[in-house]
Amino acid sequence: MSLSSGTGLFVTFEGGEGAGKSTQIRRLAEALRARGHEVLLTREPGGSPGAEAVRHVLLSGSAEAFGTRMEAILFAAARNDHVEAVIRPALLQGKIVLCDRFMDSSRVYQGVTGNLEADFIETLQRIAVNGVLPDCTLILDIPARLGLERAKTRGAATADRPDRFEKEELETHEKRREAYLDIAAREPERCHVVNATQDEEPIAAEILAIVNQLLGPVAVAKLPEAAHE
Amino acid sequence: MSLSSGTGLFVTFEGGEGAGKSTQIRRLAEALRARGHEVLLTREPGGSPGAEAVRHVLLSGSAEAFGTRMEAILFAAARNDHVEAVIRPALLQGKIVLCDRFMDSSRVYQGVTGNLEADFIETLQRIAVNGVLPDCTLILDIPARLGLERAKTRGAATADRPDRFEKEELETHEKRREAYLDIAAREPERCHVVNATQDEEPIAAEILAIVNQLLGPVAVAKLPEAAHE
Repeated sequence: MSLSSGTGLFVTFEGGEGAGKSTQIRRLAEALRARGHEVLLTREPGGSPGAEAVRHVLLSGSAEAFGTRMEAILFAAARNDHVEAVIRPALLQGKIVLCDRFMDSSRVYQGVTGNLEADFIETLQRIAVNGVLPDCTLILDIPARLGLERAKTRGAATADRPDRFEKEELETHEKRREAYLDIAAREPERCHVVNATQDEEPIAAEILAIVNQLLGPVAVAKLPEAAHE
Repeated sequence: MSLSSGTGLFVTFEGGEGAGKSTQIRRLAEALRARGHEVLLTREPGGSPGAEAVRHVLLSGSAEAFGTRMEAILFAAARNDHVEAVIRPALLQGKIVLCDRFMDSSRVYQGVTGNLEADFIETLQRIAVNGVLPDCTLILDIPARLGLERAKTRGAATADRPDRFEKEELETHEKRREAYLDIAAREPERCHVVNATQDEEPIAAEILAIVNQLLGPVAVAKLPEAAHE
């Protein structure tokens, strides 16, 4: 992590629905563990007891009275708890932390609704992450229509909405996709756009290659069997 | 309020325990209403449904897992809801809003614990108040020992704690008092320090005089009986 280089590696997965994030994060975790790394798999929203408590409020009846601004602040509180209680300690122990969605999700999802100023969102993010920035963010990129179809196939999306909603849904997904690509263009050092229309196997290989490059020679030194190679 | 001058007046009451805030805020509300003003009386923490929901989380069992940082963010979320749902609408309607504790309480109470950086607290405040700053803050000032004695007399404080705790309590109260006076010194335009060791009557008169000066000629124009005077 950027805060204290030399300890741990913080990798986040981002992308729209149906991009295959869950599958790929699981595969990466398995591959890294097979090579002797200590891996912590976590996700947002949630990921820590405090964050879950806040999530509970956000999903509760009282949340209907909340404005998008308060909702955003509550999400920031949840993220901060997740960072301080789970992510930072794991990184300080030298673990590889893989997180399914993180700060870019807020930027994209809150940014696309258009109700909040970009400056407000960025200030909240600074407060939430408190210096713990991802070393690497894998953006699984897929055209909106294909992503939505895939999400529907696995039953994650709303299969029987009328066409009107589907059109709106498609436009929203397209906007989010563009927002992700904008972030990637602005932060090319951190962000890697992965073509998620490929088959599972080549995507997994591409991701593992990116992460291995980041681990560099340290990765080899960490392997218990390295001495025998 | 600073956001849209010409509409409403936002007055906050601050001070340690036993300074008589509740009594004085009630008296001021009565005096202003008697003169024909529309007054909204509110308080923190709480003050709106969203803020109450957050307060519920803060008081819940899960809150024990929260760090002071997350707690501060949650308080900011509650304040923002209070501002957007209650205070700002009332001010836009031209009302006088009297609030028992507001942003200075966070500065003083979170600042004195010493766990959070001043910069972090200020950033959170900006997010929470979102431009709705008090026109006038009345700091009811009382020596820590006297304040604590008064609070105990009315049963608000912990009457049967051992001496050791009492000493710590006294020191904490003294630090908070200094923190309030620091704020007043830094923002003399907004803050008025009121000597709260006086009797109820002269304190009320002093406060009313300060607020009347702020209302200025508008106050007279608002009086239905002004034409007959």
